[in-house]
Amino acid sequence: MAENGISRGEYASRVKKIQQVMTERGIDVLVAYGSESEPQNLIYVADYWPAFETASVVIPREGPPALVIGPESLTYAKDSGVIDTIFQVMEHRESSEPDYPDKALATYRDVFDALGRGRPAARIGISGLAIMSVPVHDAIRRSAGSAEIVKADDVLIQLRMRKSAEEIRLLRQSSAITLKAFEAGLANIRPGMEEVEVSSFILAEMFRNRAENYAFTPFVLSGNRTNQAISRASHKVIQRNEPIQFSFGCKYKGYASSIGRPLCIGTMPPKYRDLVKVGIEAQECVIASLKPGIPAREVFQKYWEFLNRKGFSRYFLYGPCHGTGIMECEHPFLESNSTYVLEAGMTFQVDIYLGDGAFGLRFEDGALITPTGAEVFNSRYREVIELARD
Amino acid sequence: MAENGISRGEYASRVKKIQQVMTERGIDVLVAYGSESEPQNLIYVADYWPAFETASVVIPREGPPALVIGPESLTYAKDSGVIDTIFQVMEHRESSEPDYPDKALATYRDVFDALGRGRPAARIGISGLAIMSVPVHDAIRRSAGSAEIVKADDVLIQLRMRKSAEEIRLLRQSSAITLKAFEAGLANIRPGMEEVEVSSFILAEMFRNRAENYAFTPFVLSGNRTNQAISRASHKVIQRNEPIQFSFGCKYKGYASSIGRPLCIGTMPPKYRDLVKVGIEAQECVIASLKPGIPAREVFQKYWEFLNRKGFSRYFLYGPCHGTGIMECEHPFLESNSTYVLEAGMTFQVDIYLGDGAFGLRFEDGALITPTGAEVFNSRYREVIELARD
Repeated sequence: MAENGISRGEYASRVKKIQQVMTERGIDVLVAYGSESEPQNLIYVADYWPAFETASVVIPREGPPALVIGPESLTYAKDSGVIDTIFQVMEHRESSEPDYPDKALATYRDVFDALGRGRPAARIGISGLAIMSVPVHDAIRRSAGSAEIVKADDVLIQLRMRKSAEEIRLLRQSSAITLKAFEAGLANIRPGMEEVEVSSFILAEMFRNRAENYAFTPFVLSGNRTNQAISRASHKVIQRNEPIQFSFGCKYKGYASSIGRPLCIGTMPPKYRDLVKVGIEAQECVIASLKPGIPAREVFQKYWEFLNRKGFSRYFLYGPCHGTGIMECEHPFLESNSTYVLEAGMTFQVDIYLGDGAFGLRFEDGALITPTGAEVFNSRYREVIELARD
Repeated sequence: MAENGISRGEYASRVKKIQQVMTERGIDVLVAYGSESEPQNLIYVADYWPAFETASVVIPREGPPALVIGPESLTYAKDSGVIDTIFQVMEHRESSEPDYPDKALATYRDVFDALGRGRPAARIGISGLAIMSVPVHDAIRRSAGSAEIVKADDVLIQLRMRKSAEEIRLLRQSSAITLKAFEAGLANIRPGMEEVEVSSFILAEMFRNRAENYAFTPFVLSGNRTNQAISRASHKVIQRNEPIQFSFGCKYKGYASSIGRPLCIGTMPPKYRDLVKVGIEAQECVIASLKPGIPAREVFQKYWEFLNRKGFSRYFLYGPCHGTGIMECEHPFLESNSTYVLEAGMTFQVDIYLGDGAFGLRFEDGALITPTGAEVFNSRYREVIELARD
């Protein structure tokens, strides 16, 4: 990535920290996998966001890591990543499985041998097992010799949960771009548009401000589609006086952001308006309870008590926070069963999702745990938004 | 998807055809997997494009198929797909692996039991094994009992290679949107912009014309980045008089399109201009050789002879065609080792990629094999494009 992204020094220090944890856990080699839509491990270690093909970063306990890519990505990977040692392995090819009849390729055995410097690994950790493709997993197993293979997602998760100053700067910048995109959506939405047409203004503003991508395909949801916790803009035509949900974010220099707001063109249905007001209060309640040293579960409990007090606990779906960083949604979740304690440097999306069966809403903003409380990346538009349109 | 997408009748006939092939091959149950970035099987059978979570369509040899999704996608899946029977399985959860402490979920055993109507499967086929995640594969194996599990990608590939009239209509519409996006890019690109900023105009035009998404993150490549076969727009600043490559496409009602053109603001370097002219002739040579009844390998050979005659065979990377449909790049590839014969109803991207080490270019357009030759979805801008800018 270009200047003002994460510095080379920080990438080096990430690898060092990973190697410390590997030593503590007796992991000789860590294979961290990623794909186009799940690039988190690759971006964190290698500043590499694959296209079409998948990739792994392979980290030995000592010395520099290697990047393992598919048959077609070499020129791109040399240009875009921070890792100099690159192997090309067939199993990282694109999903349509081209044959590459004349191409000489490496195996994971070659990678392990090169990084092991003659000492075979006794234990290979895998990070990203939940998303790893079957052929890549088989390729690693075939090349592992007598080494034990263990799930080791935790190594990277623990490090990624605590953000550096450079990461926090990029998260703030990413949020600022997302806010501009939100305002472009508000300014241009009209009744009679399909939901996807509204995405046009949102995405244009993101990329105009030099985002590399959306954080997830934008949710512009209208009518009863607001009731979908996971969704995306569709061909539904937007009507006057019906609930509308904006939930979207961008990626800037590898870092994600997101905003969620319910709104309406014209006048909100009164029952929905009441739900919106509870959503606003709920988000403020959660933000007020974010402090270092507080058990995550306490934040959940305060939110839960608030909903009960208001008589809205049956509208609860999940929440009220999840980690954020390279991915819009990443560890740690903040739930009824959370066991960790909030620390300065952790970043969350404060994500209030309430649904009454017919309609739903989401108030969402990024926040950083500071030494004294929380810095919310955006606090604008936390209000009943009713747009006047001719 | 909304009206004027693929009809319900066509989805039903797709399932019937799949079941015929399953019967011929002795496959009792077919599990077709997909993800957000690789949704092809899910869109083809179920009109379902997952977000965050993954999914499978499970097709019995007789009777209607089931959709298997993760813990959070139920409301979305009910709204957006054409399959009524839906199961929620933990292993399709999102990559950050939430716990869902209080959620009751099914297993693949439940799915197989429900579809098998008391008769256990002897052979389970998997389509999408190349992209299937390890936990989903393990979940299927645990639930398979004594059934044999076989790779069965070919079942869907064979059907998807031959396009219906409805598919062809959508591919034409998708191409028309992509052409508009290309013209928006041409009209708005300026020296001094970052490559990602140019994507702003391209994406805005796609979504304004009701595309649901890009077909792949747009390639706006400048200078020596044109030499990357796989890539995406970066933060590099675009200069006057350097090679620029546009390669992008959209998805419209599930169907992909793509255009590739080299261009320049100002004057092309003379050597690059020569390469561009060869690219134009090469694409025309390939288009002229597309006819039903012709062995695919012959198309490759004519292209190869052309490059040799021009003295440009060392600039060859791959090509000159690959299948296109729900995915911008899908089966069949057209290579030196292709063994199939062209048929009316097959659709390709005619994709000429040439690189001289320093710079590269790609001329790409979609084409349909017709009863008498080929219909190219776009033939505009197949020329030396030098933009005058103040």
